[in-house]
Amino acid sequence: MNKPYQWLEARFNRLSQLAHFNHLANWDQATQMPSGGAAARGEAMAELSLIRHELLTATEVAEQLAMASGEALTAIQQANLRAMQRQYDLSVAVPGKLVRAKTQAAMAAENAWRQLRPANNWTEYAPILKNMVDLVREEADARVDYASKQNANITAGKAARYDQLIDLYEPGCSSAFIAPIFARLKQTLPALINQVSVRQASQPLMPLPTPLHAEKQFQLARGVSQKLGFDFERGRMDLSHHPFCGGVPDDIRITSRFDPNDLFDGLMSTIHETGHALYEAGLPKSLRGQPVGEAQSTGLHESQSLLFEMQLARTPEFVSFLQPQVEQNFGSHSAFASDNLYRHITRVSAGHIRVAADELTYPMHIILRYEIEQALMLEQIEVADIPALWDEKMQQYLGVATLGNDKDGCMQDVHWAAGEFGYFPTYTLGALYAAQLTASLRKTQPDFGAAIAQGDFGSIKHWLSQHVWQHGGRYTTEQIITMATGEPLNPDFFVNHLKRRYLDE
Amino acid sequence: MNKPYQWLEARFNRLSQLAHFNHLANWDQATQMPSGGAAARGEAMAELSLIRHELLTATEVAEQLAMASGEALTAIQQANLRAMQRQYDLSVAVPGKLVRAKTQAAMAAENAWRQLRPANNWTEYAPILKNMVDLVREEADARVDYASKQNANITAGKAARYDQLIDLYEPGCSSAFIAPIFARLKQTLPALINQVSVRQASQPLMPLPTPLHAEKQFQLARGVSQKLGFDFERGRMDLSHHPFCGGVPDDIRITSRFDPNDLFDGLMSTIHETGHALYEAGLPKSLRGQPVGEAQSTGLHESQSLLFEMQLARTPEFVSFLQPQVEQNFGSHSAFASDNLYRHITRVSAGHIRVAADELTYPMHIILRYEIEQALMLEQIEVADIPALWDEKMQQYLGVATLGNDKDGCMQDVHWAAGEFGYFPTYTLGALYAAQLTASLRKTQPDFGAAIAQGDFGSIKHWLSQHVWQHGGRYTTEQIITMATGEPLNPDFFVNHLKRRYLDE
Ligand SMILES: [Zn+2]
Ligand SMILES: [Zn+2]
Repeated sequence: MNKPYQWLEARFNRLSQLAHFNHLANWDQATQMPSGGAAARGEAMAELSLIRHELLTATEVAEQLAMASGEALTAIQQANLRAMQRQYDLSVAVPGKLVRAKTQAAMAAENAWRQLRPANNWTEYAPILKNMVDLVREEADARVDYASKQNANITAGKAARYDQLIDLYEPGCSSAFIAPIFARLKQTLPALINQVSVRQASQPLMPLPTPLHAEKQFQLARGVSQKLGFDFERGRMDLSHHPFCGGVPDDIRITSRFDPNDLFDGLMSTIHETGHALYEAGLPKSLRGQPVGEAQSTGLHESQSLLFEMQLARTPEFVSFLQPQVEQNFGSHSAFASDNLYRHITRVSAGHIRVAADELTYPMHIILRYEIEQALMLEQIEVADIPALWDEKMQQYLGVATLGNDKDGCMQDVHWAAGEFGYFPTYTLGALYAAQLTASLRKTQPDFGAAIAQGDFGSIKHWLSQHVWQHGGRYTTEQIITMATGEPLNPDFFVNHLKRRYLDE
Repeated sequence: MNKPYQWLEARFNRLSQLAHFNHLANWDQATQMPSGGAAARGEAMAELSLIRHELLTATEVAEQLAMASGEALTAIQQANLRAMQRQYDLSVAVPGKLVRAKTQAAMAAENAWRQLRPANNWTEYAPILKNMVDLVREEADARVDYASKQNANITAGKAARYDQLIDLYEPGCSSAFIAPIFARLKQTLPALINQVSVRQASQPLMPLPTPLHAEKQFQLARGVSQKLGFDFERGRMDLSHHPFCGGVPDDIRITSRFDPNDLFDGLMSTIHETGHALYEAGLPKSLRGQPVGEAQSTGLHESQSLLFEMQLARTPEFVSFLQPQVEQNFGSHSAFASDNLYRHITRVSAGHIRVAADELTYPMHIILRYEIEQALMLEQIEVADIPALWDEKMQQYLGVATLGNDKDGCMQDVHWAAGEFGYFPTYTLGALYAAQLTASLRKTQPDFGAAIAQGDFGSIKHWLSQHVWQHGGRYTTEQIITMATGEPLNPDFFVNHLKRRYLDE
């Protein structure tokens, strides 16, 4: 007879082994699967989800969790038990019927979105989105209800909904935590964007020669990824429509896409996904297969990708490292001069599209979405109000009008159609964590820039491994940030980073 | 409360959905997976096997099987129930401990084989193979024991071992069935091989120009596969070290490999795997996910690949169809004349290697293996006796000596190291089924050759679909062959086919 904790370890290991196939199938679906295979794959994935759900929410699991809490456990085992309890709670909080309804609605809404967005068809999209918002409100209510029974500090009601959704992606985070941080950005960034735009308007930018052969771009990006530390013995890089990072720690699969008219879109996406991949590969080997061995939060994950993409790669030193490789692949050209390349990767421009935004304007796209999804959960607004509100906020935050152009406005992202509310803030939390971590990293590494210029990322990765990756899910994100940088999240680091990079302050 | 049969359908559907991930992971392993991912994949696969084993052998399954046999069921449901019972019986017959020991030994032995075969190292290989033979004897004993309790016609003892192993791949088949068939081949083929060799020695064979660009060969083979009916909306073709066909009915994945010095190796492998793929794709849609919806036997599966590769593709008419495509890809060359191409694909030559053998000598390689594995199971010989026996039989059957050259002798195949005994005969059963089916097919299709020359395989596939594919596992292989051709397996069809093709008789 196993002790309860041992029993739970075996059960969660089984769940992790099943997740292996989930990761593989998702990667395959995005990179390899023929279109005719979609229905069979969908059925197999649904059955796999159901099996995992049954294994996770079995009565035995609740019993063993209760018994294990009385066992004498090490600190790591206790952290693992908390992570197990969290996974169990998140799974049982929502009735299976609602989960299935939401999964089906998400699949239908994503398919509809793919057709209706290019057609700019808000009229047909609105009821589909409304249906999803209703389901998400219902899900959030179920979560609030469950949580309020576990935790006396949580009062049931609409006001608690949004926090339950944020917590899915960023454990322990809440709108109370986010509000002052986003307020600071909202107060600072619009003026900063104007200043930088005026300044950059006087800086000449020479267009890069095109076309830039996509296969060569792929090889260049692959080489950069390898230099950053991606291990191609334990991973792959492929093409896909949307770049992503998937797989399992010893077989991590990143994807990117390459546009012959754009040298940096595919390259920077590759660097971004490489950051995600290095975090996954750097998670503690001894805790593999257990919840405590997983990354702590979506925002912290994003901080690692943005640390590589924004903090390391968009620097003059990284351009020194990159420039000879660009010429080696695409020949000499005056537009490939280092200062011109640097201007390309640090160009700021207020636009319609979040995924195309630079690091300065990006948070404004996020704040807008954060405010709208919060208002939706509070029922202060309804789906019908979104287009006008979107336009109003875009005009206010970025000086961009979207009325009548919903495909580049409120229809541009698939997240809401997919039922993901509470996810958007993690992008900006990630950018802020990345800036704060990099500030600490720089302090301990006097030759930070010189090492990057030489393509030597060893000591940077060593620091990240020690301060972030090796912790897995043992500490909360706030604990990890505080231990690594000496203080909890502070948006000043991000603002100072922007002022230094874009205004030489 | 579901009725027992319904309950079983749901259970076997779940098993089939899990098998989806098995197929995907096997394909990925052979074509995509980085080497560093092998250990994690191995663990995940082992856990998936265990889960499937638990789901299949649960006490409830036995109870529901017993209850369902009393239900009023349609003929197809009854056939499905028999197929379910068979899967259950095969799984519970062998103790889990032995299954795991054999799986581990197989993995170790396959790895050792990869090193020891190229080194021609029989001394180190022999004890590894002996260990596996011991495990297989133990497995066979467990199966005999289980079967003798179910079936009064089976008497426990060594003599029943081999039949239990054959039955794993060819349900209902036995050495009593195979013996007279192989005797006929053994009596006929050696003389036929000599006759054909003499005849072909006087026929000039012009070597094909090389190198033949591998990527162009891939595209040519892919085009041929598509023309044969492979649907690339519901499947893929990739490269792998050993050609295979995997996946699921709506997402079938074939692989091949291409040698710049050989025009036909990769092409014929592709056609072979296409035959397997068409069978899988042609299985009845309404029975998908149920045991009765699967292919009936390994030999019948092989008959479909060989029907395409040997019966259809190695004909003058197929060469007419192929020849312009060869020139289109590789330019004009006198060696690309149709009659020269035809001589290349019908060349007979007694050699050491089974997988490189032509259709005339191939059965002799199989008969040799059949006799040795049977003798091993009867304990008439031991592993130490194999090299000398191999040499003796190769000299006798094909005039080829192998003593001291074990890498091209008894170490050439991985099957035994992998614990697969009883599999080899299905290759030749497949060739015989293919010849017999093709004889019937020709009778109903007067324009058989003309259609092939035009690359029109529609009515051939229609016939195969009606007479083989659509049956799935509803009938035994013997029933399918009898219904399709009017008589049970008769080796004369194969012998006559060879005489017609190679001696113009
Ligand atoms: Zn990311
Ligand atoms: Zn085959």
